[in-house]
Amino acid sequence: MKRSPFAPPLFPDLPSVSGIRIAGVSAGLKRAGKRDLLIAEMRPSATIAGKLTSSKCPSAPVDWCRKALKGGKARVIIANSGNANAFTGNSGNRTIQEVTAAAAKEFQCRNHEVFVASTGVIGQPLDPNPICRCLDGAAKTLSPENWLDAADAIRTTDTFPKGATRTADIGGERIQIVGIAKGSGMIAPDMATMLGFIFTDAKMPASILQKLLDYSTERSFNSITVDSDTSTSDTVLLAASGSVKHPRITSIKDPKLIRFRQALTEVMVELATQIVRDGEGARKFITIDISGATSAQSAKRIGLAIANSPLVKTALAGEDANWGRIVMAVGKAGERANRDKLSISIGGIPITSDGQVINDYDEQPVAEHLKKSEVFLAVDVGIGRGKARVWTCDLTHDYISINADYRS
Amino acid sequence: MKRSPFAPPLFPDLPSVSGIRIAGVSAGLKRAGKRDLLIAEMRPSATIAGKLTSSKCPSAPVDWCRKALKGGKARVIIANSGNANAFTGNSGNRTIQEVTAAAAKEFQCRNHEVFVASTGVIGQPLDPNPICRCLDGAAKTLSPENWLDAADAIRTTDTFPKGATRTADIGGERIQIVGIAKGSGMIAPDMATMLGFIFTDAKMPASILQKLLDYSTERSFNSITVDSDTSTSDTVLLAASGSVKHPRITSIKDPKLIRFRQALTEVMVELATQIVRDGEGARKFITIDISGATSAQSAKRIGLAIANSPLVKTALAGEDANWGRIVMAVGKAGERANRDKLSISIGGIPITSDGQVINDYDEQPVAEHLKKSEVFLAVDVGIGRGKARVWTCDLTHDYISINADYRS
Repeated sequence: MKRSPFAPPLFPDLPSVSGIRIAGVSAGLKRAGKRDLLIAEMRPSATIAGKLTSSKCPSAPVDWCRKALKGGKARVIIANSGNANAFTGNSGNRTIQEVTAAAAKEFQCRNHEVFVASTGVIGQPLDPNPICRCLDGAAKTLSPENWLDAADAIRTTDTFPKGATRTADIGGERIQIVGIAKGSGMIAPDMATMLGFIFTDAKMPASILQKLLDYSTERSFNSITVDSDTSTSDTVLLAASGSVKHPRITSIKDPKLIRFRQALTEVMVELATQIVRDGEGARKFITIDISGATSAQSAKRIGLAIANSPLVKTALAGEDANWGRIVMAVGKAGERANRDKLSISIGGIPITSDGQVINDYDEQPVAEHLKKSEVFLAVDVGIGRGKARVWTCDLTHDYISINADYRS
Repeated sequence: MKRSPFAPPLFPDLPSVSGIRIAGVSAGLKRAGKRDLLIAEMRPSATIAGKLTSSKCPSAPVDWCRKALKGGKARVIIANSGNANAFTGNSGNRTIQEVTAAAAKEFQCRNHEVFVASTGVIGQPLDPNPICRCLDGAAKTLSPENWLDAADAIRTTDTFPKGATRTADIGGERIQIVGIAKGSGMIAPDMATMLGFIFTDAKMPASILQKLLDYSTERSFNSITVDSDTSTSDTVLLAASGSVKHPRITSIKDPKLIRFRQALTEVMVELATQIVRDGEGARKFITIDISGATSAQSAKRIGLAIANSPLVKTALAGEDANWGRIVMAVGKAGERANRDKLSISIGGIPITSDGQVINDYDEQPVAEHLKKSEVFLAVDVGIGRGKARVWTCDLTHDYISINADYRS
């Protein structure tokens, strides 16, 4: 697999998060002894929140997490790549029973404090035994600094491991947030074919943690698209170890949360945009700003209609200033837009106003901007004050090559 | 442009339709003297029905037709390729004023009996003069048999001209139906980036004609997709010259209409599937049957989620029996489906039942079927009795090549 041109030269230097230990090991699910199993341990009182795929055909691990999240407590996260354990019927559930039982035994917790996620091929039974063997004695081998191994273990078509970190404070106490993620294709909001695991040492009731995750997911993982396809397995988990003694948080409206929420959103946006930068076949990273919509939601739908349009994405791949396709995509979104007030700019250069191309429009600087690897589109739809930003990548020959022959 | 492998060896032999005369000429909008203007004349009492794009940024001709359809009467249809007259602001409307005035003068009718359609690049002003020059004296040059020229004149990225015909009878009188269409990319339901013009010599009130067109469009042009993109310009017009003296039709429920409606649907399905067969870069023609949904509408949405999935389409391009992506697409449709009852077959070969792959599944015959150029997928979602059939094509390198460099 060719490395994405957007791959950072180095995996970021991620700090330890008090109360969290992790590992990325090889269970033999992938070929050639590659890492394929993430194990994360939280200290016993840790809380958890999650966002799961909206697919009506979710994987067995997604079903499991949906139930387990009701408890709000997490001691272990087990995530494997190489097999999605999706569309595996009863055998898929039995695998999870065995894996969670083995993890519960090793980490001395209840089954429902074990969270599982799987990514890889759909429809093939997942043998629990290789995973259970790795779990046996795992508690002794985890460490607080294995982020790179862990991020590596959840990769499928990803060409680079993904991680991000921020610090925040709550009531003057320093809080650490670290996240890792995987995802490259089958990426669409609600959500991307992705796994994301975010850890913090804050102490947070699960219900508040969930609201924070909802807020930040909407602005990050739910604002990206590579190919409009929604996976059976999308899972984002946010675990809070509670190791830091900060003032107690009892309400989502507590102003002490503002900086934490901001930092959390930044971590998640950084992970989400890394996924887009690693989009299958991506040669261009595209930021789309929509304004003038009836609401933020409406703006986002328009943004995603542009971001998902194969014709917009192929035009950008071809560095073709064919802005008519942006008009087309705005039109197909089905959201209110005033065609005769539509303003489009590319790379900050105005192209249209009042429903037609501007008088002295010069394509040259737009064409120059499109040669860059980072492209900015902005559209004002001329109705209201709703705004949104979404991210996508271009649609290239490499996307076809990667996906026409994924399994072989 | 490489000719589609599905292009028929010959344009079909289309008969004349009493009361209809047509031409396909060169107005100089396309390069090298290619045909780019369709002119169709209906006898003075002809009625008309239409289906127009659902885009919120429709082209000027779509706006015009939407108004003109209220009259229900049509004397002339003028359609050009090479320029979509979309997102052209007031100048787009002025062009239509001039073109319709010129046509009304030439064919001695009212402006609102002139219907216009344009297809091509978005956002460039369309000069009315070359079209008006062609209209001057055009009435004398039309003929009842110029179908090939007319179908040729509306092509853009189409690699072959598209036509279809059927005969029906109403109360024992023989009725002719002839249709021509264009479309290849920016094809999605509601509707494809397409123009379609269908002519009959039946005598039909406009309101009944519209209901017939609604019915048949739902089962044809609104059941196809190439790339999920919706054009600013999609237009289907059905004109009835009323030349045949058959028993008067006053209700859509008249049983004398059954065979006519069937024949009309057949013409439109044949045109619609020709568009898919000419889908940009298409190497495979894919028929998808959905059953077991809560309703026909729900079945269609599931079918289109599969038909629009880039991952399904690239897998088919790669002749890869990666049926897990069909599960993914069913899941992302957002429609009710019973994952644990889902049955998938490819080429009539059952692959899954009861939410998992069948016991003795042998991929070999499925792989053989996928090597063919016509592929059949069937999915039963295990809930109700809703059924639908949709058509699409695969997503290939040629789609990228065609669209990354459309304008140059």
